[in-house]
Formats: sequence, structure tokens, C-alpha cells
Amino acid sequence: MGLPKGFQFSGTSCGIKPSGSLDVAIISTRSAGTAAGVYTQNVVRAASIDWNRQLTPTNCFRAVVINSGNSNACTGSQGTEDNRQMAIEVAGLLNASDDQVLVLSTGVIGHPLPMEKVRTGIRNAVSLQSDSQDSFDTASTAILTTDNGPKTVAKTIRFGDAEVNIAGMAKGAGMIGPNMATMLAVMMTDAKISASDAQRILTRAAEQSFNRISVEGHTSTNDALLLVCSGGSGIVLQSETELAHFSDELTSSCIELAKRIPSDGEGASHLVTIHVRGAQSEQDADRVARTIAASALVKTAITGSDPNWGRIVSAAGYAGVPMTVEETDLTLNGLIVFRNGQPVGFDPPTVSQSISSQFETLIDLKIGSGPGAATHWTSDLTVDYVRFNSEYTT
Amino acid sequence: MGLPKGFQFSGTSCGIKPSGSLDVAIISTRSAGTAAGVYTQNVVRAASIDWNRQLTPTNCFRAVVINSGNSNACTGSQGTEDNRQMAIEVAGLLNASDDQVLVLSTGVIGHPLPMEKVRTGIRNAVSLQSDSQDSFDTASTAILTTDNGPKTVAKTIRFGDAEVNIAGMAKGAGMIGPNMATMLAVMMTDAKISASDAQRILTRAAEQSFNRISVEGHTSTNDALLLVCSGGSGIVLQSETELAHFSDELTSSCIELAKRIPSDGEGASHLVTIHVRGAQSEQDADRVARTIAASALVKTAITGSDPNWGRIVSAAGYAGVPMTVEETDLTLNGLIVFRNGQPVGFDPPTVSQSISSQFETLIDLKIGSGPGAATHWTSDLTVDYVRFNSEYTT
Repeated sequence: MGLPKGFQFSGTSCGIKPSGSLDVAIISTRSAGTAAGVYTQNVVRAASIDWNRQLTPTNCFRAVVINSGNSNACTGSQGTEDNRQMAIEVAGLLNASDDQVLVLSTGVIGHPLPMEKVRTGIRNAVSLQSDSQDSFDTASTAILTTDNGPKTVAKTIRFGDAEVNIAGMAKGAGMIGPNMATMLAVMMTDAKISASDAQRILTRAAEQSFNRISVEGHTSTNDALLLVCSGGSGIVLQSETELAHFSDELTSSCIELAKRIPSDGEGASHLVTIHVRGAQSEQDADRVARTIAASALVKTAITGSDPNWGRIVSAAGYAGVPMTVEETDLTLNGLIVFRNGQPVGFDPPTVSQSISSQFETLIDLKIGSGPGAATHWTSDLTVDYVRFNSEYTT
Repeated sequence: MGLPKGFQFSGTSCGIKPSGSLDVAIISTRSAGTAAGVYTQNVVRAASIDWNRQLTPTNCFRAVVINSGNSNACTGSQGTEDNRQMAIEVAGLLNASDDQVLVLSTGVIGHPLPMEKVRTGIRNAVSLQSDSQDSFDTASTAILTTDNGPKTVAKTIRFGDAEVNIAGMAKGAGMIGPNMATMLAVMMTDAKISASDAQRILTRAAEQSFNRISVEGHTSTNDALLLVCSGGSGIVLQSETELAHFSDELTSSCIELAKRIPSDGEGASHLVTIHVRGAQSEQDADRVARTIAASALVKTAITGSDPNWGRIVSAAGYAGVPMTVEETDLTLNGLIVFRNGQPVGFDPPTVSQSISSQFETLIDLKIGSGPGAATHWTSDLTVDYVRFNSEYTT
């Protein structure tokens, strides 16, 4: 299982992070590819988001430059200019034009970028570009902030005798909200796909994956998910059948990558999978699932392996969607605790043991007899989350 | 400053709480009064909420019985019947009919009420009814659950030579969300006010007070705010001028009482007052304020006295209302940190010291030049909140 062909990667350290950790990454294509993007719905947006929104979908993509340690958000007109300079710097070194370069930033809000350091970082990163696994891994590390480690996926999919590769990298551990691609992620493929098809496929994948995760529900100013298609495999995907197959595979890769984010949520001791069904629509189910995911009382109950299911049912009740209490069933890790709106006699220590003995907790809630279902993934809420986020220093 | 005339109070312990603490309270009027109610918007509602919604506003109120330690929510048809039996028991002892008795319950969700204990508690509480300050204080203690102490207000207001008294008691420390009267509270007055006027006045007061507080934003199944008018002062309030004066005074008492709730929020180390202005409407300002109040990242920053203002501005950005970043200003405890969408050079230790040295933190955010303003009160999020709620045992 190789990396997608036609890409080059690199990561370096330029001193944006006081720790000296890797903080600049560049992913480029050897020749112009297509790219699509899905971005935060926050009206307070980083300069990079405004830049990318104007440029994607595009059929002349050459590179994305990513810095970590500084989000370049809430930085006013200086931030807009600094962002543009990052694209210009990369473009000049790659013989591209600045509108062929996308920019992603992540880190603390409200501080101007140290542009001299950033320029040095970009020059180093361009000089280190390579298609090796090592370079890919270095890039995937350079985009991290509070993450415990890199988050990547890779797979090969077949179209008859032909092979196409998909790979992706993501970062995100805090400020993860469920409205829009809630972090930074770059998906890459060596298939050749038109910009409009790439955009359609990426939007669908985001809805099923990065839009369905949360840590604390705070939508970042910088969330972005990109899909870059180098065409390096020589395989062109354009029939509906081919595109549907690719779309399914990309979506499953995005779900796999997205789940890594709450799994590595700040302080997380559980990944919580919330499956809601019986709603009147998928949108309603999604809304209930994300309301449960946002409840600090639900999250702390999971942390404590406490089968306090009333917190889950009551959270569903204020999601603002129709719910038939008399038809409501709830299971925790497959163990029934509430059926048809009535409490069920169950053994609390058994349920508690089931929660405490596994990293993943499955909440399955039926709220009626409708066709709508949706799944959301979140982390629990621990003392370590609070400690970490109240000791963070600007 | 006396208690409102025409009321009797009592509190007792009947064993709903394993600790043996006070868990039943009764407030009654000597003769039929009027009562109004505002209730949780949660579709998963306790039996008591459904009962009270059918009965208020009423002009034949006689008593409200309150139990703590068990919410009688998610308890199915048995819960409905148990709730009715509570009203019947009180009514029988007071020579009233059951539809003259309101019921409030608070505590753990999903467990049937221990009805034999409850009946005993009700009999004891009726036998202890008195108009003394001690009885009022005992009742205000008997309605508590995880609260650190009772929350009461009392004041006398003048209409020319006449005096009218207002008093109130509330409970709430967790599962406090901003949709609806987010806890239990009973406001009492000895003015004589019609049921429909009482309802109108209470609804307005709730919107400005109990609807604008939160701890973790989880809307309870049992939230209720009642206004009971005994008429015991002999003063009838019916002109628009009199009612407007009373309404303002009741609202200010409700705000005073409501702020006690996040002040005593589980684990709280700060009361956070969030004032939003410059919005296109009061509703928009309210939505921004409650979105900021719901952000775990904002709350943990306050806990740590961290002037990480990007968390506040970015939370406003995902509230879903129009916001003009170029006209956005933010002060923390009066110290400017962001002006016209640009970061302002400020001394972080000074802001941090200002937060750490006071219990109350004031966030003042202007998001444009519109006329809409609103204030919301919340607690911060501490290690103790998480510890408490992950160690709670059903």
C-alpha cells in the first residue's frame, strides 16, 4: 500500500512553536492537480480560510502550506497580508502562481505570525520536498498542536485492473465542534478527478465524518478539510459508477481519520460513539446525537463509568426535534437501560464495568419509529481536559 | 422586611435522600390565591411538569409540594400516578382539591418515588406548616440537592402608603441550561394579582433572569419557576402602572436569585457575566451570550485566569447570528483586548490578575453597531465540576 503518486511532502521547524517542534509542512503536486475544500462555518475566520474559500474548487492546484502553533485568526488586515505572503513565498519557490497555493494555519488565536521565521520555514520545507514515507510522516507531525501523535490513513482501491491510492492526514484534539470540518485535514489521491466532482465528493464525505465529531463542541476559526487529486496514477475517474465507488472509499477513510480526533481529544479517557435512530429524518437524528455529545453531564458520566442514563435521555429531550418518549429505547454498550419510555431493571455494576473496561462506549438511542439515523463521535470530559485547558497560557 | 403574608412553609426529611437530609417542603396559602408557572422546554418532562402545565395559571392555588432527591422523570405511567398521589395526599390534609396543589420534584432521573416515605413526609410537612422565618428557611433548605446552601430573596415594595412583600427560594447547581426556568424556584407575594397578570409578569421575569443562566447548559427535565400570590397583604394590583412597578421589582428579585445559581454552580470558582451588545436584536445578543457561556474553552480559560480572548471571539462567531468582525470590541473586566477586529497590545499579567483576584468576571463583547443587547450569567468549568459529576453514583 503505497502513498498516492505525484505528491511531495515535507515538514520542518522554524520556531513558531517555542518548543522547537515541527511547525511548517508543505504538500505539493508535481504538476497541476484539482483540489476541493470544506471550511469552518464560524463567521470569525482565519485569514487562511478566506484565502482558500476563494480558490477552491480549483483545477490548477500546486501546493498547500500548513503552519502549526499560530492560527493567524483575529489578526486583522496584517493577518490577511501575512497569509498572502505565505502563498507568494511558496509559489515563487515552486514556479507556480500564488493562487495555486492553499494555506492552512492552526494554533493560538490573535497573535501576528512571526513572518521572518515563517519565510525561513517555507524555504527549508520546499528544499526538503520528497515523495518518501518519511517525508509524509514528517509532514503529518508538523501539522499537530496539542495532539498526542499524528493521525493518518492510507489505502489502495481498485477499479478493475487499475489501482488508485488515497492517503490523508489530520490534526485536532481541542476546539473541536460539530459544525463543519472541525480541524485540519488533507486527503490526497492520485486519481484524476475534476474539481467539481472532487468538491461534491468531499462535501458528502465531510457530512458523514468530520462534521460528526466533537471534543467540546467549540467550532474553530480555522477548520478545513481539503481533497487534493494529483492525477499521478494516470487513472481518470469520471463515470458515475467510478465516482460513487471512490466517494464511498473516501468517505470511509474520512470516517476512520475523523474518529481519531475525539479518540485523541484533550484528556479523553473514552471515545463515545452515539448512534441515534427512529428520528423523523437524518438531520433530526444528527441534531439529537450532537446534543448528547455536547452534554458535559453525559461526558462526565462516561468518564466515571456511571450508568446514569437519565442524563442521555434528558439531553435528547432538549435537542429541539420531535421525540416520542413512549417509543424511546436506550442501550449502553448493548445493555438495555430504558425501553418504551420506562426504566428497565438492570444491574448497574455490569453496565459500569462494561464502560470502564473499554476505551469505546456505544450509546444507542431510539427516539421513535421514524427512518432517520445518524452517528456522532465524541470524547468524554475528564479532569485532565479541564486541567489542560485552564493551564494553557497564551 | 417581613415574609409575604398569607403563606405557610415547612420542610422535613422522609428518607428520599439516603443521607437523611431534608427532602420534602410544602408552601401553602391560607386561602385560595393565584399562581403562574414557567416550565422546562425539554420534551422529556417529569410527571410534575405535565401536572403543573395543565393547572397554571390558576386562581384557586392552595399549595405546592416539593420533593428533592428524586426527579420522578423518565418513570413512565407509574411516575404520573405517583405525582397525582402526592397532590391528592396534600389536598386531603389541607381540605383542598387535588387540582389546587402543584408539585415540584428534583433529583436523580429514572427511579420510582418511594411513595410510602413520600406520604409520611407530606403528613409531617403539613403538620409543621407555619408562617415563621424558620419554617421558610427550612423549606428553602429542603428543596436543595447538590447546592452548597439555600438561595432566597426577600424585599418589600411600596405602592404609595401600601406595602407588598416579595420572597423567593430557588435550588440549582447542576444540569442548568439556558432554555427555560433552569431549576426550581418559587416566588411568593402577598399582593393580590390576577392569574393572567401573574403569568404575564412571570414570563417576562423569567426571560430576563432564569432563562439567562447556565452551569453546563444541560436543560433539566424538571425546571420550573412558579409565582404564587396569596393576597395576604390586602393590596390589589391591577392598574398597568401598579403591575409594571411590581413586574420590574419581581424581575430584579428573579435576577438576584437566578445569579445565585451559577455562583453556586457545581465546582464553580467564578461567576461569569457575559454582556453582548451591538447585535441586530436582543434575541441575537442573547444567542451569542449563551453560546459563549456554553463554551468549555471559555469557561476553562476563566478558571485558569487566562486572558485567552480568542476563545471568546471564536465562540461568538459560531453562534449563528450576524456579526461584524471589523466592528467587534472585547473587554475583560473592563480591560480592552480586541478592538475593531484587531488585537490590541495589552499586558496579559494585568488581565490575568484581574480575573484571579475576583469571584466575578465580566466579559463585554460588542459585535457590531446594532441595538441588541443581552446579559447571561454562567459558572466557570473546574476540575471539581468534572470530579463531582464523574463520581456521582446513580
